[in-house]
Amino acid sequence: MAFSRIARGSLSRVIGSHVGEKDLIPQGLASSLCSLRSSENARSSSADFFFHSDPRHSSKLGLGHSNSQVRGIKTTPHFQFPNAMSAVEESDSEDEAQKFPGLEATKPGEKPRVVVLGTGWAACRFMKGLDTRIYDVVCVSPRNHMVFTPLLASTCVGTLEFRSVAEPVGRIQPALATSPNSYFYLSSCTGIDTDKHEVYCETVSDGGLAHEPHHFKVAYDKLVIAAGSEPLTFGIKGVMEHAYFLREVNHAQEIRKKLLLNLMLSDNPGISEEERKRLLHCVVIGGGPTGVEFSGELSDFIMKDVRERYTHVKDYIQVTLIEANEILSSFDVGLRQYATNHFNKCGVRLMRGVVKEVQAKKIVLNDGTEVPYGLLVWSTGVGPSQFIKSLNLPKSPGGRIGVDTWLRVPSVEDVFALGDCAGFLEQTGRPVLPALAQVAEREGKFLMDLFNRIGKQNGGKAFSTTSINLGDPFVYRHLGSMASVGHYKALVDLRESKDAKGIAHAGFISWLIWRSAYLTRVVSWRNRFYVAVNWATTLVFGRDNSRIGA
Amino acid sequence: MAFSRIARGSLSRVIGSHVGEKDLIPQGLASSLCSLRSSENARSSSADFFFHSDPRHSSKLGLGHSNSQVRGIKTTPHFQFPNAMSAVEESDSEDEAQKFPGLEATKPGEKPRVVVLGTGWAACRFMKGLDTRIYDVVCVSPRNHMVFTPLLASTCVGTLEFRSVAEPVGRIQPALATSPNSYFYLSSCTGIDTDKHEVYCETVSDGGLAHEPHHFKVAYDKLVIAAGSEPLTFGIKGVMEHAYFLREVNHAQEIRKKLLLNLMLSDNPGISEEERKRLLHCVVIGGGPTGVEFSGELSDFIMKDVRERYTHVKDYIQVTLIEANEILSSFDVGLRQYATNHFNKCGVRLMRGVVKEVQAKKIVLNDGTEVPYGLLVWSTGVGPSQFIKSLNLPKSPGGRIGVDTWLRVPSVEDVFALGDCAGFLEQTGRPVLPALAQVAEREGKFLMDLFNRIGKQNGGKAFSTTSINLGDPFVYRHLGSMASVGHYKALVDLRESKDAKGIAHAGFISWLIWRSAYLTRVVSWRNRFYVAVNWATTLVFGRDNSRIGA
Repeated sequence: MAFSRIARGSLSRVIGSHVGEKDLIPQGLASSLCSLRSSENARSSSADFFFHSDPRHSSKLGLGHSNSQVRGIKTTPHFQFPNAMSAVEESDSEDEAQKFPGLEATKPGEKPRVVVLGTGWAACRFMKGLDTRIYDVVCVSPRNHMVFTPLLASTCVGTLEFRSVAEPVGRIQPALATSPNSYFYLSSCTGIDTDKHEVYCETVSDGGLAHEPHHFKVAYDKLVIAAGSEPLTFGIKGVMEHAYFLREVNHAQEIRKKLLLNLMLSDNPGISEEERKRLLHCVVIGGGPTGVEFSGELSDFIMKDVRERYTHVKDYIQVTLIEANEILSSFDVGLRQYATNHFNKCGVRLMRGVVKEVQAKKIVLNDGTEVPYGLLVWSTGVGPSQFIKSLNLPKSPGGRIGVDTWLRVPSVEDVFALGDCAGFLEQTGRPVLPALAQVAEREGKFLMDLFNRIGKQNGGKAFSTTSINLGDPFVYRHLGSMASVGHYKALVDLRESKDAKGIAHAGFISWLIWRSAYLTRVVSWRNRFYVAVNWATTLVFGRDNSRIGA
Repeated sequence: MAFSRIARGSLSRVIGSHVGEKDLIPQGLASSLCSLRSSENARSSSADFFFHSDPRHSSKLGLGHSNSQVRGIKTTPHFQFPNAMSAVEESDSEDEAQKFPGLEATKPGEKPRVVVLGTGWAACRFMKGLDTRIYDVVCVSPRNHMVFTPLLASTCVGTLEFRSVAEPVGRIQPALATSPNSYFYLSSCTGIDTDKHEVYCETVSDGGLAHEPHHFKVAYDKLVIAAGSEPLTFGIKGVMEHAYFLREVNHAQEIRKKLLLNLMLSDNPGISEEERKRLLHCVVIGGGPTGVEFSGELSDFIMKDVRERYTHVKDYIQVTLIEANEILSSFDVGLRQYATNHFNKCGVRLMRGVVKEVQAKKIVLNDGTEVPYGLLVWSTGVGPSQFIKSLNLPKSPGGRIGVDTWLRVPSVEDVFALGDCAGFLEQTGRPVLPALAQVAEREGKFLMDLFNRIGKQNGGKAFSTTSINLGDPFVYRHLGSMASVGHYKALVDLRESKDAKGIAHAGFISWLIWRSAYLTRVVSWRNRFYVAVNWATTLVFGRDNSRIGA
């Protein structure tokens, strides 16, 4: 197979591959978790929460896959990793080249080609500013848009429209759509040959192609891996089958469909009181910013829209947030207390508990408590994806791709990694940064500047960077954390770390800061306009409750 | 079974049930087809187009059902009709009552209960104005919103957002959400017992209920059947499996996903020229207003957005509209010529042909021509659904529920039918009206006025209308037809019928009339605002091309 020499660097491994390990961020790091995040934080507090995490986790990801698809849950399909490790020793004959059409290595005189894996915060920030007069850029991702994740929770209940939080990648970097040698490929990367400087890809499709799956390769001068992470399920039985995650726009669509379905089903004649309560019990697992903001949005939806427009069943609906320790553990203690009081007032029940098993209609906790539910949203942090685990590259503590302080992957040439899928190597002496949008975006900007700089010094081509001064290494400075808790209230924590001093404020003013801050961060003017229009119409007309879909 | 006496009227059938017949509107009617429609017109021109229509059509609807679900095609599932006819003679024991919880008949002193089947144009217009001080209203439909169908084609290419054309039924008639004895049930009606004055329902669900499918019954004082129609496939092999319809918001979502997928797939390396052309060949079958407007929208999308943002593949994309006769056969001859010329200029290929078979990647025409396609949209008109066919009620020519000029179903008490599922009985001497939004809405308004009038005279309860004067019968006056053809051009035909005199105009002014007319018809201020905002942002920023979904 042509992708046999996957990530086979010429140097020996600096750090062994931690395939199968969880991406549990060490205690010291928890302080820097913040709310401008690319998804949920992998929180240190979860470590004891899920102490029974199953080492067979990785092998279980394939289970219930078809079922998961139905709920809009997108995990890396298992067929993407055709025994990458065992294939290393197979030969790659000449015939194989035909099986892998694609982009050959750039010739002298041609622009260097940067291949970017991913369309998240890190990849998009990187591509946005990349000097396309110097580079051709090829982006490979199963998703053609970036998701403005901090506002995703708002779309589940109709405060925002789905489209307002999605930005097509061709608008972020127009060269992808218009430049003759730049491309966006709606595909998954299945393997990397770091010797040959090639990536191997498989198209995302629905059976419409003549020969499926369609495979191709792309040769790179520089490779930027920003392929993101996957939700942590800690191997807990039933999570993949029954819970919803909240990381993609279609996750939000599915949550919304389920919520509206349950509201309507519970109104049907002949539904018992008990069943009605179960259907309308919304359970959120994980008290990080995503879990808290989603609970806040749900509470707003219930207090305002359900009371007005589902009056028959309004007294049955309940939101429960289950967390092993304290909610928002990275926030200032005063803010945490504020959030707890606020939730008590708004009817969001906070529950301490460790999940043992998830069944179709109930959650079983470690102490034997059974919690019947109608909707279950799982947001207990993220860890390395199967794809990242399968790569034979150095790994950071926690199993992400290990990088040095210039975000280079050592031991292989011209490979960079950033965002949720990358972490500093142990010998850099730096902690692995949390899986936050803030971190990913800053890394994207750093690498973009670095690429533009070396590109101008003719360092863009493969094997050409060795003699070039890369400039200062990447330094992350935490700007602060924010989380809305619903009912026009938010928390703003502008301290650099958990133990530092600084401004920490909660309430309506914070909520205004939260909205303004996010509005300025929305990628395009089009979406900024739409978010503002959505907020205004929700205020005037209330939330939309059409349930679209079969 | 309790729904054994389905629609068993005490009188003998006035007109036999035309189960299995097509809803082909006779020639004389074609003249009154117009563009403010609830879906595609059942066009007389299709009659010879599809002269090979298969009498086994009805039995084939169940085929490929699971496959169709994937493409968002919603047909009435076959399990909804548990041998309604053969069950007629079965006894209904006392035990059965428990199997069918539900709403019992209203007691003296309670408000009369109107049960409405459907949430389309007719049902929603009826419910919107119904006096809820007189009536309790129960609406049963598998869809909780009304679709503003004339603008649905615009959502496929991102000119409009999906949400802008969906109006939740609870906003159209707030009593459904708030009144103590009014309800909206997200369910399908599976049978009607006209003797007992009961309808039998089955919840729409996704496996979340304790006992599924959940059945219940609702007793009515008056029953309004406005359950709509289904797309006509004429029994042509492969249509259900491979074509997209365009009648629901999720159909538009699926078409959009497929179109964007094909645009991206065709850009992948190693895709042959031939395969690229096939992927980007969008074929529309049926040259009625829906097919024409969708082709126009596609052409706009290609001329503007594809040229700018898919430059690598822009020369491969092609739209073909296949029709057996002339497009827009109900329009003025001058307007038809205008549309034809316009399409020639915009690169929409018009093709005469009769479809014999649809395969996964090509269409076979009757003359043997093979037409490879990447996206196939089927809009050749609508006919009675399996549910309507299964009802043992009098039928109009074409197999719809037969009604008199007050929209009453004769031979049974307190049953009314309107919209696409109803048609005048032969003995009324009136032609069956076309399946248009304009007709459905006017019927809904007529029946609403009638109900409010008889309600005030205490005629709302079951078996109480006999002595009440119903007022003038329903008369339909055609206001005219409109169709946009893309590129800021539209046709406006304000003649009352095909042969009448009157204003017929095409061009930019017509397009302004088209937009203004539809904007004023949009149901709510919220959606009116959104449609205007969508149009403005499309003009400024272009169309959105994020592909959301797994």
